[in-house]
Amino acid sequence: MTSDDLSRLIERLPFASIDHLRPLTQGHQEVIFCLNKTPGQVVAIAQRLAERSGTFLATRIEPAHRDALQVAFPRVAINELGRTAYLAPDPEPAPTGRGKILVVTAGTSDLPVAEEAAVTARALGNAVERLTDVGVAGIHRLLTQTEALREAAVIIVVAGMEGALPSVVGGLVKAPVIAVPTSVGYGASFGGLAALLAMLNSCASGVTVVNIDNGFGAAAAASRINHT
Amino acid sequence: MTSDDLSRLIERLPFASIDHLRPLTQGHQEVIFCLNKTPGQVVAIAQRLAERSGTFLATRIEPAHRDALQVAFPRVAINELGRTAYLAPDPEPAPTGRGKILVVTAGTSDLPVAEEAAVTARALGNAVERLTDVGVAGIHRLLTQTEALREAAVIIVVAGMEGALPSVVGGLVKAPVIAVPTSVGYGASFGGLAALLAMLNSCASGVTVVNIDNGFGAAAAASRINHT
Amino acid sequence: MTSDDLSRLIERLPFASIDHLRPLTQGHQEVIFCLNKTPGQVVAIAQRLAERSGTFLATRIEPAHRDALQVAFPRVAINELGRTAYLAPDPEPAPTGRGKILVVTAGTSDLPVAEEAAVTARALGNAVERLTDVGVAGIHRLLTQTEALREAAVIIVVAGMEGALPSVVGGLVKAPVIAVPTSVGYGASFGGLAALLAMLNSCASGVTVVNIDNGFGAAAAASRINHT
Amino acid sequence: MTSDDLSRLIERLPFASIDHLRPLTQGHQEVIFCLNKTPGQVVAIAQRLAERSGTFLATRIEPAHRDALQVAFPRVAINELGRTAYLAPDPEPAPTGRGKILVVTAGTSDLPVAEEAAVTARALGNAVERLTDVGVAGIHRLLTQTEALREAAVIIVVAGMEGALPSVVGGLVKAPVIAVPTSVGYGASFGGLAALLAMLNSCASGVTVVNIDNGFGAAAAASRINHT
Amino acid sequence: MTSDDLSRLIERLPFASIDHLRPLTQGHQEVIFCLNKTPGQVVAIAQRLAERSGTFLATRIEPAHRDALQVAFPRVAINELGRTAYLAPDPEPAPTGRGKILVVTAGTSDLPVAEEAAVTARALGNAVERLTDVGVAGIHRLLTQTEALREAAVIIVVAGMEGALPSVVGGLVKAPVIAVPTSVGYGASFGGLAALLAMLNSCASGVTVVNIDNGFGAAAAASRINHT
Amino acid sequence: MTSDDLSRLIERLPFASIDHLRPLTQGHQEVIFCLNKTPGQVVAIAQRLAERSGTFLATRIEPAHRDALQVAFPRVAINELGRTAYLAPDPEPAPTGRGKILVVTAGTSDLPVAEEAAVTARALGNAVERLTDVGVAGIHRLLTQTEALREAAVIIVVAGMEGALPSVVGGLVKAPVIAVPTSVGYGASFGGLAALLAMLNSCASGVTVVNIDNGFGAAAAASRINHT
Amino acid sequence: MTSDDLSRLIERLPFASIDHLRPLTQGHQEVIFCLNKTPGQVVAIAQRLAERSGTFLATRIEPAHRDALQVAFPRVAINELGRTAYLAPDPEPAPTGRGKILVVTAGTSDLPVAEEAAVTARALGNAVERLTDVGVAGIHRLLTQTEALREAAVIIVVAGMEGALPSVVGGLVKAPVIAVPTSVGYGASFGGLAALLAMLNSCASGVTVVNIDNGFGAAAAASRINHT
Amino acid sequence: MTSDDLSRLIERLPFASIDHLRPLTQGHQEVIFCLNKTPGQVVAIAQRLAERSGTFLATRIEPAHRDALQVAFPRVAINELGRTAYLAPDPEPAPTGRGKILVVTAGTSDLPVAEEAAVTARALGNAVERLTDVGVAGIHRLLTQTEALREAAVIIVVAGMEGALPSVVGGLVKAPVIAVPTSVGYGASFGGLAALLAMLNSCASGVTVVNIDNGFGAAAAASRINHT
Repeated sequence: MTSDDLSRLIERLPFASIDHLRPLTQGHQEVIFCLNKTPGQVVAIAQRLAERSGTFLATRIEPAHRDALQVAFPRVAINELGRTAYLAPDPEPAPTGRGKILVVTAGTSDLPVAEEAAVTARALGNAVERLTDVGVAGIHRLLTQTEALREAAVIIVVAGMEGALPSVVGGLVKAPVIAVPTSVGYGASFGGLAALLAMLNSCASGVTVVNIDNGFGAAAAASRINHT
Repeated sequence: MTSDDLSRLIERLPFASIDHLRPLTQGHQEVIFCLNKTPGQVVAIAQRLAERSGTFLATRIEPAHRDALQVAFPRVAINELGRTAYLAPDPEPAPTGRGKILVVTAGTSDLPVAEEAAVTARALGNAVERLTDVGVAGIHRLLTQTEALREAAVIIVVAGMEGALPSVVGGLVKAPVIAVPTSVGYGASFGGLAALLAMLNSCASGVTVVNIDNGFGAAAAASRINHT
Repeated sequence: MTSDDLSRLIERLPFASIDHLRPLTQGHQEVIFCLNKTPGQVVAIAQRLAERSGTFLATRIEPAHRDALQVAFPRVAINELGRTAYLAPDPEPAPTGRGKILVVTAGTSDLPVAEEAAVTARALGNAVERLTDVGVAGIHRLLTQTEALREAAVIIVVAGMEGALPSVVGGLVKAPVIAVPTSVGYGASFGGLAALLAMLNSCASGVTVVNIDNGFGAAAAASRINHT
Repeated sequence: MTSDDLSRLIERLPFASIDHLRPLTQGHQEVIFCLNKTPGQVVAIAQRLAERSGTFLATRIEPAHRDALQVAFPRVAINELGRTAYLAPDPEPAPTGRGKILVVTAGTSDLPVAEEAAVTARALGNAVERLTDVGVAGIHRLLTQTEALREAAVIIVVAGMEGALPSVVGGLVKAPVIAVPTSVGYGASFGGLAALLAMLNSCASGVTVVNIDNGFGAAAAASRINHT
Repeated sequence: MTSDDLSRLIERLPFASIDHLRPLTQGHQEVIFCLNKTPGQVVAIAQRLAERSGTFLATRIEPAHRDALQVAFPRVAINELGRTAYLAPDPEPAPTGRGKILVVTAGTSDLPVAEEAAVTARALGNAVERLTDVGVAGIHRLLTQTEALREAAVIIVVAGMEGALPSVVGGLVKAPVIAVPTSVGYGASFGGLAALLAMLNSCASGVTVVNIDNGFGAAAAASRINHT
Repeated sequence: MTSDDLSRLIERLPFASIDHLRPLTQGHQEVIFCLNKTPGQVVAIAQRLAERSGTFLATRIEPAHRDALQVAFPRVAINELGRTAYLAPDPEPAPTGRGKILVVTAGTSDLPVAEEAAVTARALGNAVERLTDVGVAGIHRLLTQTEALREAAVIIVVAGMEGALPSVVGGLVKAPVIAVPTSVGYGASFGGLAALLAMLNSCASGVTVVNIDNGFGAAAAASRINHT
Repeated sequence: MTSDDLSRLIERLPFASIDHLRPLTQGHQEVIFCLNKTPGQVVAIAQRLAERSGTFLATRIEPAHRDALQVAFPRVAINELGRTAYLAPDPEPAPTGRGKILVVTAGTSDLPVAEEAAVTARALGNAVERLTDVGVAGIHRLLTQTEALREAAVIIVVAGMEGALPSVVGGLVKAPVIAVPTSVGYGASFGGLAALLAMLNSCASGVTVVNIDNGFGAAAAASRINHT
Repeated sequence: MTSDDLSRLIERLPFASIDHLRPLTQGHQEVIFCLNKTPGQVVAIAQRLAERSGTFLATRIEPAHRDALQVAFPRVAINELGRTAYLAPDPEPAPTGRGKILVVTAGTSDLPVAEEAAVTARALGNAVERLTDVGVAGIHRLLTQTEALREAAVIIVVAGMEGALPSVVGGLVKAPVIAVPTSVGYGASFGGLAALLAMLNSCASGVTVVNIDNGFGAAAAASRINHT
């Protein structure tokens, strides 16, 4: 590809350089991360993406983003808990990944991050299942679900507080396990730092970790794995 | 007790004020914490304590402390792994606590801290048992020991790395659980900080925590509980 | 117990897995931690618990939780300072613990955490007493209360700022002492970190520590001790 | 599997509980992490593993571990740079993973961690390639290797200092990228913390992270992915 | 200069000591940093500066500062995104610096800091250009702009999250590169700490760093360089 | 003094134990720290103190505290900038300290902390002077005031950002210098941590430090010194 | 004083600028801080100081410094515990300070820092007394010494671990209290950070703090106070 | 330049990719950073560089590196204090930069970092001067050197402890000031963190900062500026 070809694939707005190379290099187009962007910026980027491909995903939407997107794209699907806006292709294609991605949460308060992961994973072409509120302090809630764990191609484990769940899950299965620490907690959780450190120090071999509350990143990684 | 009585119970050496009130206030005499003390200081304090009561316990001994104590007290018992020196009363009385204290370790590397706890607990008048290398990444190693956990009056759980074991143990039993984070690990364990934070954020209700590597403190707390 | 029995004791709502095993394993049912839960989720969980046992305890309630719980359970008792909602069994049974739990506070600003602890301890079946504003900078406020300290079966010490009070209390009594750091302070208190570290480094042997502001956890631990 | 079956698969030594369930649950037997273990403990565990399966892998070996293992297992292969000891099955089977695992290093000083990853990945049944010293400050060193990057099934990126390489690699390929921060650096690298935080905050979607210097963990995760 | 001369150049208000020496020592008069100053204080200082020189620059203005300054100085130019108020000299002189200062941003969310830098650089007598949203995860967005980078006399690189962009830019050019970490990010970005540490550990030689979000400081440093 | 005498000097309210021993032990009665206290609690404590001595000082007042105190004590003096409420004795006695306390501020934004110090120092019986906005970046603003510095008996230096001013002042005078870091700054000031660490590491011998924003504490220390 | 006079009072060696102004500005000449200086540098500086005044004090000496100083100055007094070398004036003048400086230590391990303080205070012209091993866990060790505390003009309190002693001392006396945190401790003491934070957050009004292990600085501050 | 040209300029050794593009992109060839490299690796890289250009610079050399380099390059110049090895071109060309780079140190202990900066700056083609031990606690040591400061084209300020010197220097001159924090200090200096934070928060506008102890990086930045 020549340098001119490259330049044509980068669309320069006054406030953003949209990278239309990504479907080639990454397997999917840019996802709009709305934190610190104005509603106008988000809509403008969404329009460029929708024009090229008929679809976009926006994460970390706040009410003002949501309202602006619903006006511009009446068909957009909002997940209030997960703070996502997704314009699916029409018709939406079947999942392309090899297996199912299972999203496991330690507690009820971890659901917003889990939903961000679930919506993202579906938008990136994966079948998704959920297993909720199976934290380690009542270990039987998890152990009675061992079969569900073993059927998954990739497992995303979302947990705050002491972040112990990925270690236990990692010890029960052969599949890749992606740990997502959440900012759920208080005091010495230090905004999710406790869970993050616990997951990085997991004694289960082969657990990998993403940023605190980064449901999107976990799903993107799981989708890479599921499409290898 | 008059102020003069109090003063007589405090023995002032040039480098230490030995508090002979402690058997009254704490239920046991001072334990000698050897870190940063010279062998000479340790022996001098040990002699004062042995004179009064025929017994002493020294923790965090290094080889120089050990050698000096063995010269001064040929009968002293050294636990190399636990870095303790214990001069038992002669004859050693039977345990006085209500039940057994169980010392559980997540991994082989946690044994020095666990041994410090076990020796201390025995010296303070408790029956002690051990359960070793039952970390959460192979959860069945722990679950097959549920009966042993349920028989204990107090459980001390010693774990480094992600520090998840106390949460699981806490969820399996009604007894008090004291969590001891260890400095076992590397990188983002930050000298035991990861395990410490995890334990402080345990989702199991009623787990309490002591300082990193503080096997002594855990045993002292367990003994208080076992003698209430 | 078979795997099917276990599964029947775990009640799966869309957002929570209620663990009805806990009265067996923990000695009491789940307590509802309201932080980051919606009022609707809290009420739904409370209803499941109340149906099974006629009682529940909710901690960290905010006004919206309180209002929703008062509508659903007119008999519920709210502690505004301690941010708790407690539906007592009717009639409320006498305390079952062996002795009294004493809740000591260093300063007036530590009262919310102390009240959370006191309400929890009572709900878990313990007799509770309080000793307020006896911080170490006016040490005589504490020393004139030595008898009250010595009569307690378990002592919970709640302190912010430099977190020194548990060390002094621990040196005055034989009973188990549970230290609760609070986020009271400013500047280099770093949200309670200063008090937390001080308590973990207590030179009084046998003091154990819970998370910053975790009055609930301290009471749960004290109740375990008091019911051993 | 009955509880008795489980118990038989856990071999209890005085200092370790060897978990022979892992080939079933994890797809490979335990790997011996030598940090803080004595040579005697390491050899004893290695013997149990070799008896069952004819193979073992030990990581983070120090000279004393190496010497003891070479005496006990003359056939063992030592990687001095990567600090590993590997007793391969005889004959060693061909790789079983779907594709190649590529281990990329930012600088010469990151090689020890990279070698730990490479040896582990091979021992777990994967074909391995290496790409060395392609850090971002001379970006053309990486860009001239884009084809090698795109041929890999999984990429492990090892980098210290500012930890920027995984973000660039992640933007160039569709394959899963596992980032390993190293403790290479000084001053404000804070033992690898700078690289760790950078990798957790990567703007490339789908990069996951393991602990500082955890070449083993990265390889274990890559092998899980490569065997899904 | 005598001590009396010095004293005459320091104008003492009740709440500020305005330093009219700075044009001599620093090459430009004081810039008003509005954070934590009242609108009244800001206007009073602006008036003293405008009286002496017909110009002032105020940074980190909030709406109340903006409104008060617009009333007092109808000609003042507000940059809403960059939170600056600039009263240009009338007529505004041509740039005095040797070359162009290029302000590069990694992402859309970094624009407020970049605008603060751009306005400041112009006010201090420099020609300014901008290059926007060229973060490292889509490296071709940057590489197609290499000529623009090489034409600049000084480059200011503004980036949050993993802060990798200055390392790549630093490796592409000979000009001085000033890195500005931003607080853009979440979780383990810790308010810009991740980007700050990454920039301090840059493997590109000769990158220097200013405080998080300190667009003003970067421009002041760039202007010093451009006027040497 | 007997234990009964002591008890009589401690006035127990439901939420506070007022320590009327302090005039004996500390030289002044308790000062009311209003952070996290309700207006009702503050007024109740103020009434007890005013009854005994005709005076009180309250710090860190918020509008609700101020309003309640003005209702209860029409004569109370409010310092809005310093967030203090002071009921002076009537008539107010002349200062009792040996010399003058000088309160020096680095910048305009440090004034609230400086005013808290100035009001407290006066209330504790000291003559007070002020020197404002003499930070080190324009060192001549300070050097032209050397005489004022040398006339003070004690100097309180209030500074945020890099906290360098106490080092320079400490090198210019023989008097005791108390450094007060403030939370003025942003980014890597980390809420005053940068200034705090700088002051603790001062190369000027004999500078002591108090908590971030602790104007009260600095004045209390200065008054102790000034009354020795 | 003219600029030339100033220049003559600064003696420029290749590796040091000796400031002979300090007796005028600070009341005493420079003290030699030996950490990171070579023995040769230390001796050279000591010679310049001794030539001018017949005396010097060197702190943080290591064996190589000690040996070199004893060769060059046979009369120098070494304090091994406090790591100081002091060449007293001959004859040594009587103390010039107003009262006694009392150095209080919490534990035996804090003695090195306390000795550094005591030697420094004497060298700077103060009478010094010591009170040893009176930490808060055995509070009666301190309370029986209240008279000694009340007789001091200035009190230096040296404590590691939880750093609680200054708060208790501060509440018992009117004199200035200078708190010195020490690095004594382990685990979550984080090299003295726990004690430092505790002291900065002291609820005793008017306690000031110096750097961890900074016995010298505490004595310099105490001497300033004692000579005001 | 074609992709093949690029590839030819990157020389691939088994452990390093030497980037011969750098003279084009950066204005000078690679500098060898010896930390964590073996002597053999260092010599091998030095040989490749010397072959191409007749010169190399190695920083952070330890004795083993020094010895190996002296054997391989008898003409190499070692700076023991600065830990550098420099093979100058023969004959060494005159400086090419526009003005002088002045290296200022706060204290004697900062000299190793300052020497690393001075040697690097000379090797990169700059005239260099030094000003030593002019820290802020004796401010006249600096103020009597104002002329030397004003003659420099670029100033590098090296300081540990509280890191205040760059703020004062930055306020005295118009030239670019690069601040280098050093790890000189103890306790709450936290390995140079205190100085680093202070410099990042400098109230002098236009000070930029490099990593702790990074004398090399400061010189590289100064040389970029001096060659613009």
